[in-house]
Amino acid sequence: MRPIDALVNALPEGRVLTDPDVVDSYARDRTFVEPGKPLGVVLAASRDDVVATMRWASEHRVPVVPRGAGTGLAGAATAGDGSVVLSLHRMTAIKELSPADEIAVVEPGVITADLDRAAREHGLMYAPDPSSYEISTIGGNLATNAGGLRCVKYGVTRDSALGLEVVLADGRILRTGRRTVKGVTGYDLTGLFVGSEGTLGVITSATVRLRRAPAVPPATFAAEFGSLREAGAAVAAIMAAGCQPSLMELLDRATLEAIDDWRNIGLEPGTNAMLIGQSDAADGQAVAARMERLCVANGATFVAVSSSPQETDELIGVRRMAYDAKERLGACLVEDVCVPRSVLPDMIAEIEAAAARHDVKICTVAHAGDGNLHPVFIFERGLAEPPANVWAAADDVFRHALELGGTLTGEHGVGVLKRRWLGLESGPVVQEVQQGIKAVFDPLGILNPGKAI
Amino acid sequence: MRPIDALVNALPEGRVLTDPDVVDSYARDRTFVEPGKPLGVVLAASRDDVVATMRWASEHRVPVVPRGAGTGLAGAATAGDGSVVLSLHRMTAIKELSPADEIAVVEPGVITADLDRAAREHGLMYAPDPSSYEISTIGGNLATNAGGLRCVKYGVTRDSALGLEVVLADGRILRTGRRTVKGVTGYDLTGLFVGSEGTLGVITSATVRLRRAPAVPPATFAAEFGSLREAGAAVAAIMAAGCQPSLMELLDRATLEAIDDWRNIGLEPGTNAMLIGQSDAADGQAVAARMERLCVANGATFVAVSSSPQETDELIGVRRMAYDAKERLGACLVEDVCVPRSVLPDMIAEIEAAAARHDVKICTVAHAGDGNLHPVFIFERGLAEPPANVWAAADDVFRHALELGGTLTGEHGVGVLKRRWLGLESGPVVQEVQQGIKAVFDPLGILNPGKAI
Repeated sequence: MRPIDALVNALPEGRVLTDPDVVDSYARDRTFVEPGKPLGVVLAASRDDVVATMRWASEHRVPVVPRGAGTGLAGAATAGDGSVVLSLHRMTAIKELSPADEIAVVEPGVITADLDRAAREHGLMYAPDPSSYEISTIGGNLATNAGGLRCVKYGVTRDSALGLEVVLADGRILRTGRRTVKGVTGYDLTGLFVGSEGTLGVITSATVRLRRAPAVPPATFAAEFGSLREAGAAVAAIMAAGCQPSLMELLDRATLEAIDDWRNIGLEPGTNAMLIGQSDAADGQAVAARMERLCVANGATFVAVSSSPQETDELIGVRRMAYDAKERLGACLVEDVCVPRSVLPDMIAEIEAAAARHDVKICTVAHAGDGNLHPVFIFERGLAEPPANVWAAADDVFRHALELGGTLTGEHGVGVLKRRWLGLESGPVVQEVQQGIKAVFDPLGILNPGKAI
Repeated sequence: MRPIDALVNALPEGRVLTDPDVVDSYARDRTFVEPGKPLGVVLAASRDDVVATMRWASEHRVPVVPRGAGTGLAGAATAGDGSVVLSLHRMTAIKELSPADEIAVVEPGVITADLDRAAREHGLMYAPDPSSYEISTIGGNLATNAGGLRCVKYGVTRDSALGLEVVLADGRILRTGRRTVKGVTGYDLTGLFVGSEGTLGVITSATVRLRRAPAVPPATFAAEFGSLREAGAAVAAIMAAGCQPSLMELLDRATLEAIDDWRNIGLEPGTNAMLIGQSDAADGQAVAARMERLCVANGATFVAVSSSPQETDELIGVRRMAYDAKERLGACLVEDVCVPRSVLPDMIAEIEAAAARHDVKICTVAHAGDGNLHPVFIFERGLAEPPANVWAAADDVFRHALELGGTLTGEHGVGVLKRRWLGLESGPVVQEVQQGIKAVFDPLGILNPGKAI
């Protein structure tokens, strides 16, 4: 019997897909990275399915690539030859939502925005909101420690993860963390799993923290600038003034053009940067007015403030459209560098210089309040791999971010895409220690090999 | 040459103390736990001293007990026979404080409140504030993942730790984390070290996050109740109303009596619980008034609100006095259970029942907004160990906390004191995984053996 037949036998009927076209569609994330040829896909419907899959994988030494919705931007869910894809997207139960304790217990396939909506029925919210939150899953968000727009105020996914149920490589079940807001019993295994890209275990349940939803609609502003540097200076001024925005997004001219070409947002010729900010504080309207004044003081050519939910949705909608708009231009290599906030203008200048130096089209958006930039390098669709000038520009941007005291990845993860630069940031001691930890959880090396570390 | 002489030779002059009385004073934390007889104490003045100590310890297989100010309440810094105490309290440099990036880089011996004061000169604050923050060190806070009064709003020490420099067991230097507010390169080693009680490495530098200090003085209230249950209900109502207090402390009658006996706070006969709360929001005065009304609605017999800094300091001072006041009553076994907020009244009832059942004096304070309770079991000073009825009452409290979905320790750590209950919370898979991680960092088992896990 072939190993894959043993897997089919080990699971309830219909759980394993082997049609090559279907398997191929589950072997990719949202990057250009070409997958190999996996043996099949498991559509797990329960923790038992995950346990059975991992026991089988351990027995047959088959690599397993856990997967949420495949919206990742780093190749962390790209599946290789001879592996099995383990998709958690059908495990969609919100098992518990406790308004009194402000927690929810969820399966990994829950769509992030669905959890947020469920929480809002009780006056709460699930804060982490990656741009993909209408299509990405909590499990995927946990695996990559996803960020998002609101994390400038509320933190990243790890900051909302209290406890996990994880199926280990050999099929044993590990329960980490707690249901309480504080707890220090033993090592922080929850934090270790968050962001580990499925290389240490498969998350089958998560206890997450909910927060009070703001009582009033947020106040939102959009400001236009003649240059990215002025917009960057406005961000620095807003953060230094203690405005504590709940969102602070920067879009460059190339991004705005891509959106304008697609959806006609009436882009003015002199607008080279747009800043969209929000305050959800009790005195949000006053804070937004302060942020507006700081934009004007830093050279904004136009600023509009709104607290109408519809207008707000439109402004934020422009930002959430950014990645889709760029994908219309060609294949995309998405970077995710994060730098100390004070050097954001320097980083922006280097991105512009690298684009010119290597003759590459780069569209940049930034979670500017966090110093987290997403320069997107556009190249010809259909190429197996970005051309040399794109890699060279990407290399310049990564190295400059590290020189500025930054990091390769603020929120997307390492996946396969950033591994070639890992050594520059981490150094040999970190790498040795991480390999040691990996071996504790996955001695056979079957969990998403070649990712994260 | 004896091993300790080799250590003296390996370090600059004056770094190693061997006088038995002096060594004994460095071998204890703030618990009753009797230490063994360490070989000596290293007063590290630099990272190089730490490296030399760890190399020596690895060569001679000598256990090393890292130590901050010795204010711990779990026996995590209690040193055993034949070990060496490695004190970091002389490494007190604030190496960098960047208002623009809202970070500081500090040595481990910096007193927590000193860093907070340094930050406030720039309109910032260092949020974590364990009750001991005027005498405890950042290094000790990191090692135990210390909580504090403000963490109901700002999170625990881990939430402010961005990056670490750690000397490993063999003397190699590991750098974890980053200077940016976000970052997901590799596994979360920073989070793993925070709360590991010196069992994985010795922290020699930390990059921590600062936050904007509130612009206006906080508004503070104190409310008196006839029963703990009413006070607990007021806490639940305040949290459910989304008041987001920056502090929410509960004191029981026994604690208030201990403080009153010492400092005469004018305790009324009918007052069986006091709640002290604070809002540092922009509209803090209005929020405090809301919290006041919710106290009255839940049975408060007296409430006072203040925004005068002096009155506020007096109210918070009552709370910060609690532990010193209890130590006047006898030896103390301090618990640190944390439960989901909604079951705080149940937990309080069980503590009262356990005190009656086992005839033990228990004084309780709670970081009530977090569900984190500190029942302090008082027993006769001079006993080597708490009497059987104290252990029995403590056991009842731990078990009940776990039954309620809580944890053994919200912020003090496991140390040696809570290890007998660890298995109840963690289970065998967690323990095996933690031992595996420990072995990656400390294959010889010389780093603070017998603690944390």
